[in-house]
Amino acid sequence: MPYVNIRITKEGATSEQKARLIAGVTELLKDILGKNPQTTFVIIDEVDTDNWGIGGETVTVRRQKR
Amino acid sequence: MPYVNIRITKEGATSEQKARLIAGVTELLKDILGKNPQTTFVIIDEVDTDNWGIGGETVTVRRQKR
Amino acid sequence: MPYVNIRITKEGATSEQKARLIAGVTELLKDILGKNPQTTFVIIDEVDTDNWGIGGETVTVRRQKR
Amino acid sequence: MPYVNIRITKEGATSEQKARLIAGVTELLKDILGKNPQTTFVIIDEVDTDNWGIGGETVTVRRQKR
Amino acid sequence: MPYVNIRITKEGATSEQKARLIAGVTELLKDILGKNPQTTFVIIDEVDTDNWGIGGETVTVRRQKR
Amino acid sequence: MPYVNIRITKEGATSEQKARLIAGVTELLKDILGKNPQTTFVIIDEVDTDNWGIGGETVTVRRQKR
Repeated sequence: MPYVNIRITKEGATSEQKARLIAGVTELLKDILGKNPQTTFVIIDEVDTDNWGIGGETVTVRRQKR
Repeated sequence: MPYVNIRITKEGATSEQKARLIAGVTELLKDILGKNPQTTFVIIDEVDTDNWGIGGETVTVRRQKR
Repeated sequence: MPYVNIRITKEGATSEQKARLIAGVTELLKDILGKNPQTTFVIIDEVDTDNWGIGGETVTVRRQKR
Repeated sequence: MPYVNIRITKEGATSEQKARLIAGVTELLKDILGKNPQTTFVIIDEVDTDNWGIGGETVTVRRQKR
Repeated sequence: MPYVNIRITKEGATSEQKARLIAGVTELLKDILGKNPQTTFVIIDEVDTDNWGIGGETVTVRRQKR
Repeated sequence: MPYVNIRITKEGATSEQKARLIAGVTELLKDILGKNPQTTFVIIDEVDTDNWGIGGETVTVRRQKR
């Protein structure tokens, strides 16, 4: 009965991409650890780029520099 | 000083229901473990059904099948 | 299908107390929001008092002051 | 490669304040633990006051009482 | 720069299985969302069966019933 | 009433370093956002290097390569 939380920046992931991610992670847990998909939760959080920092600066600023 | 995080799908929980949940969990922690309500945090996250997976599929898809 | 994470300091909660907490929170979610207990997860994290801070100091230090 | 998650109530923190928080926490981790800023993540979650409880009541209610 | 947290019950996952899980999830994020593996974190938490509840009871109790 | 969760690899952070981190983050939240230290929680999780992945491999493996 695994719980998986995936946090990514909110930059346009589609419903279809999120569905594929959920299916893929659930399958990995079944294949590698024998976990039952019916009690596997996968929750995706999409985080505003102003609220995600790496290297001491926000992703918003980082994207502008590139 | 407990910290409680409740994650549910975003499907119309009202402010009143959320308030009752917060009151109830805080009381449980006081009754069972003697925790001080004044330093008990309860945070509710409401997650889009596209972003919550169970059984390898999103709750959005699961709801449509029923 | 709620996910609940309860974080408390590691100060001797018994298996029986943790079981009561799990039962109580699961019941609250059923009573208030109609959530199915069979897909309700409750995970308790017990955190070392050296690793929990409040008021800018660790709980270890705070306990010694009392 | 630390991961830091800061959860605050959604009450008007500006992009500039969030950027300062990210910079400050990243610097602390470098200064105190020698952590590399390039692999330090800081994620800020802003939570609706209806969804944050303390003392058994929501922050929304608490703010009204003051 | 995704952050993934996988929580499973502590029931003997090996280092090799955990390494495969980390590799697999990182690859999924690259394949589906184009995320850079060098800034993809995957953290696995192994939780004591006394501390994980489902269906209102601990996994410890649930395992004994089977 | 902020909640901060800092996750680092378990590689020997001392109680004194953790106390400084807690004090520093609490002060930042007071200085930048005016948050009350008495209701600021900081929780540090120290994660086994086998359980932390970056770049698709565990930190254990990564440390060996260097």
